[in-house]
Amino acid sequence: MQIGLVGLGKMGANMAERLRAAGIAVTGYDRNPAVSDVPSLAALVEALPGGQRIVWVMVPAGAPTSAVITELGGLLGSGDLVIEGGNSHFTDDAVHATALAACGIGYLDVGVSGGVWGLANGYGLMVGGAAAQVAEAMPVFDALRPPGPRDEGFVHAGGVGAGHYAKMVHNGIEYGLMQAYAEGYELLEAQDLVTDVTGTLKAWTRGTVVRSWLLDLLVKALEEDPELGDISDWVEDSGEGRWTVDAAIDAAVPLPVISAALFARFSSRQVDSPAMKVVAALRQQFGGHAVKPAHAAGSAGTVS
Amino acid sequence: MQIGLVGLGKMGANMAERLRAAGIAVTGYDRNPAVSDVPSLAALVEALPGGQRIVWVMVPAGAPTSAVITELGGLLGSGDLVIEGGNSHFTDDAVHATALAACGIGYLDVGVSGGVWGLANGYGLMVGGAAAQVAEAMPVFDALRPPGPRDEGFVHAGGVGAGHYAKMVHNGIEYGLMQAYAEGYELLEAQDLVTDVTGTLKAWTRGTVVRSWLLDLLVKALEEDPELGDISDWVEDSGEGRWTVDAAIDAAVPLPVISAALFARFSSRQVDSPAMKVVAALRQQFGGHAVKPAHAAGSAGTVS
Amino acid sequence: MQIGLVGLGKMGANMAERLRAAGIAVTGYDRNPAVSDVPSLAALVEALPGGQRIVWVMVPAGAPTSAVITELGGLLGSGDLVIEGGNSHFTDDAVHATALAACGIGYLDVGVSGGVWGLANGYGLMVGGAAAQVAEAMPVFDALRPPGPRDEGFVHAGGVGAGHYAKMVHNGIEYGLMQAYAEGYELLEAQDLVTDVTGTLKAWTRGTVVRSWLLDLLVKALEEDPELGDISDWVEDSGEGRWTVDAAIDAAVPLPVISAALFARFSSRQVDSPAMKVVAALRQQFGGHAVKPAHAAGSAGTVS
Amino acid sequence: MQIGLVGLGKMGANMAERLRAAGIAVTGYDRNPAVSDVPSLAALVEALPGGQRIVWVMVPAGAPTSAVITELGGLLGSGDLVIEGGNSHFTDDAVHATALAACGIGYLDVGVSGGVWGLANGYGLMVGGAAAQVAEAMPVFDALRPPGPRDEGFVHAGGVGAGHYAKMVHNGIEYGLMQAYAEGYELLEAQDLVTDVTGTLKAWTRGTVVRSWLLDLLVKALEEDPELGDISDWVEDSGEGRWTVDAAIDAAVPLPVISAALFARFSSRQVDSPAMKVVAALRQQFGGHAVKPAHAAGSAGTVS
Repeated sequence: MQIGLVGLGKMGANMAERLRAAGIAVTGYDRNPAVSDVPSLAALVEALPGGQRIVWVMVPAGAPTSAVITELGGLLGSGDLVIEGGNSHFTDDAVHATALAACGIGYLDVGVSGGVWGLANGYGLMVGGAAAQVAEAMPVFDALRPPGPRDEGFVHAGGVGAGHYAKMVHNGIEYGLMQAYAEGYELLEAQDLVTDVTGTLKAWTRGTVVRSWLLDLLVKALEEDPELGDISDWVEDSGEGRWTVDAAIDAAVPLPVISAALFARFSSRQVDSPAMKVVAALRQQFGGHAVKPAHAAGSAGTVS
Repeated sequence: MQIGLVGLGKMGANMAERLRAAGIAVTGYDRNPAVSDVPSLAALVEALPGGQRIVWVMVPAGAPTSAVITELGGLLGSGDLVIEGGNSHFTDDAVHATALAACGIGYLDVGVSGGVWGLANGYGLMVGGAAAQVAEAMPVFDALRPPGPRDEGFVHAGGVGAGHYAKMVHNGIEYGLMQAYAEGYELLEAQDLVTDVTGTLKAWTRGTVVRSWLLDLLVKALEEDPELGDISDWVEDSGEGRWTVDAAIDAAVPLPVISAALFARFSSRQVDSPAMKVVAALRQQFGGHAVKPAHAAGSAGTVS
Repeated sequence: MQIGLVGLGKMGANMAERLRAAGIAVTGYDRNPAVSDVPSLAALVEALPGGQRIVWVMVPAGAPTSAVITELGGLLGSGDLVIEGGNSHFTDDAVHATALAACGIGYLDVGVSGGVWGLANGYGLMVGGAAAQVAEAMPVFDALRPPGPRDEGFVHAGGVGAGHYAKMVHNGIEYGLMQAYAEGYELLEAQDLVTDVTGTLKAWTRGTVVRSWLLDLLVKALEEDPELGDISDWVEDSGEGRWTVDAAIDAAVPLPVISAALFARFSSRQVDSPAMKVVAALRQQFGGHAVKPAHAAGSAGTVS
Repeated sequence: MQIGLVGLGKMGANMAERLRAAGIAVTGYDRNPAVSDVPSLAALVEALPGGQRIVWVMVPAGAPTSAVITELGGLLGSGDLVIEGGNSHFTDDAVHATALAACGIGYLDVGVSGGVWGLANGYGLMVGGAAAQVAEAMPVFDALRPPGPRDEGFVHAGGVGAGHYAKMVHNGIEYGLMQAYAEGYELLEAQDLVTDVTGTLKAWTRGTVVRSWLLDLLVKALEEDPELGDISDWVEDSGEGRWTVDAAIDAAVPLPVISAALFARFSSRQVDSPAMKVVAALRQQFGGHAVKPAHAAGSAGTVS
């Protein structure tokens, strides 16, 4: 079997390597000629053998992905298959699928989880689309997913968009899990009783209710840098946490934990919080509370 | 009428002034001889006329208040009355009341709201204790409370402790209100459509659903310092917000808004968030995401 | 002065009445002939006198508003002015303004606050659009806004969209304020110390930090129905709370309080929470905790 | 080796079985004679062989545990060791340790995690106390903890109290993790794209970032009862979540996620939310919004 793979960044390159190790030939294309097997998307399509052509797209969500899909619509033909594995918003998938369907080209959307560890461990895969096309791509999915029972690392979640929707929710949960461990860590650090914080977290990795892969990673991080001294408290968000909360609001689903985790990231990136300046200003107004002058230190009063 | 007033700090001094303006004689005692009318608590009690002696205690909550109450227990006698108007925890009141009752001394706990504006506007008063003693002290309460119907600025909320409990909840609500305005302000500032943010807040002060005294104060603060440039985003908490959340937890009452407002203050005082360092470390572990080195700047990746 | 007013529902009818009381002639159109002055939108436009025609649109946001705007684009002409005062999303305004501008018709968007009390008290107004057109409509705004200084009940907040953006944030703040009072009320009700809860809230209406119009309304509601026995705990949301959180997510603004207030409303409408069933199921799985069978009562264990 | 074990409830009985399977003789005492090996605590102590006597206490936290500790203080003697493995508050440990130390009796506090699965898989153990006593009890800990490296299921976390503090934080994290999965599940159920929700969760159990033991249990629960139809959404809390938030408030540590998870449990147990009745009442007051009469159904309006 041979497939084309568009986008040889960190994720794409690792996936190509895992596919090849499983005996699937991969022709890769990337805008960066230094890592690309072919000079263009057209050349990628030409390089694929006769019969059904399968192209996996692994480029940044939004305009880059849409541009590749559009171009593939002109290069591929009836019976071919595009698999979109990036971190796209699930509403993009219907647009992509419809455009390709007009050319007779099939479309699957795939949520891919596993990060840099996926190369060695396999990737968790959530797939949206038609069953027939899922079946066509199954050798590719089997090569990418973790060893073990197929249904523990792969799901045909539903129709077009279901893969990215599932991945979005996966990432929203991920935000909540990470924040839960983070709050617990801070509470362990905030007092003097528990003198071996890293050891305590490590002791949770077997037998306890909170054991998880994220906990294993946290222990690893702490063993490498016990005080996390080389890491700042500035945390990016990838967009999927935002989409998760947006989707919850659309569906009137309460999401207190995941939204709190998202907002904690927003706050982490603020040098100065306009909101908290307002609270400080109000306290000063009604209580005559001392406020800290901007960029200075000091404490406050007790009148309210 | 004449009363003693212990504690001539910002609140106590203003209250003494308001009482005197209403024709109530006040003998004040403070540890600071520069502001004290008498040299000692004993001298204060001696300075009060015969008949029922009333002493209002307005010192910091906790040990200072308890020390004054204990000393007054030895100085006052049967039929006298102590009014405890500080920001004490409501569970202290039963202790104080019981101790004084053993000496025949009455006890009222009073939550006092109004801040530095109380001198001019009057103070909102929430009183706990026995009805007979509330009646005895009513001239004092009438002098302190705002003009207008008594029940719009004064309440006999319940038995001993009810005054401080009510004040605690009042302050918890205050946290939530302030944070709500603060979040709205930040959202107005975060975009380019609304070019007159202060004017928008000012336009809310009449006719709208969100009009309030706190909003008036926010407008005043912004008119004095339009960008809040002289104020840092570091916000103290006075303790009553914490007590409110503690009380809610004891009673299994969900308090998402007030607790969020409290936590926002905690976060505002952190130079570095251990929790968010954990989240950053985890993202680096699973995604190979770039992290910001401590005390540096940079952005991150997209793998998850 | 004479204006047209489209939409004679609860808000529109009250606004017409207030305008007429101020000496502004109003021709009203509503789809409901029983309340309409004219049989059609075309008839409304024809009924307006020569010179600049001003039409205020006060119909439900979304498709109804857009349909009216589109029709007015064909009926009005160069130099006329449309004022859109509904609860529209701020991004609709640029669309409406651009469409009307193509016909030479001016456009202002107005956020209107005050509810059913606006008829008597006046409405808080936040206006977006061009200064020249704001000036043209000022007599209308002056008639609608509360008496007092203009800038305490009216603002020209910015360009097209600013009025609705400001109103959206206003409503988001409103969610947070209401939830803060609500949590405080529940905490007062949850214990036995404060025996006069309504009286306590009423005592907060003068002199205290938390005094506000919403608090006045809460006292009024409790005086009418002391246990709120005629009211269920099912709370609708109007959409503007959702938009506020969406806007915050777009702008990376942390909004813990307003989002918590929104989610509390979502939860209030759930007969059964799928999320909490999951938590119960998990506790049963790891702890052998008893769970309540669906629709039954019971308690749980302690193993974890 | 032989130890005494007080408390043969669900946890205690399982632990006794696991200890015996590992070759440690256990004499068990329970108030319930049907399951007890001896008729009294005194008989338990007498049944232990000469040399150091070790008694593991596994009874409900609070008064029951304190009563057992007090009685053991009179039965054991110098050099003996009490291990307190219940879900006690960490501040109880100093009291217990001091009381026993007066009799020359050693004390360790142990947080035990693993639930009903601990019998088969081993228990995660967090221990507080002196190193010498930890060493004395190590055979017991090794028998109880999961197989594998000792430090992945056991930690000597710190001095007296550290074990229960660590367990408290463990449980707080557990609340957050469970709620994160629960919110994600609800969001999957709330839409139509993902038609195989259980399959999607199962596909997350290998290779993904969110894989964990709790996720495995959730899949198990859903495979047993796909719609969770036999489970109500009423969720108990064991107390340790409350303690975690209390401890965070004491330490000024922001805990938005764990507190939100705790409050969600409180809300799940409310038939009627007083807070949301207030919000509904306020909407009715200012907007003339229809409210749902108590115990009826209906919707609401749009004025605000």
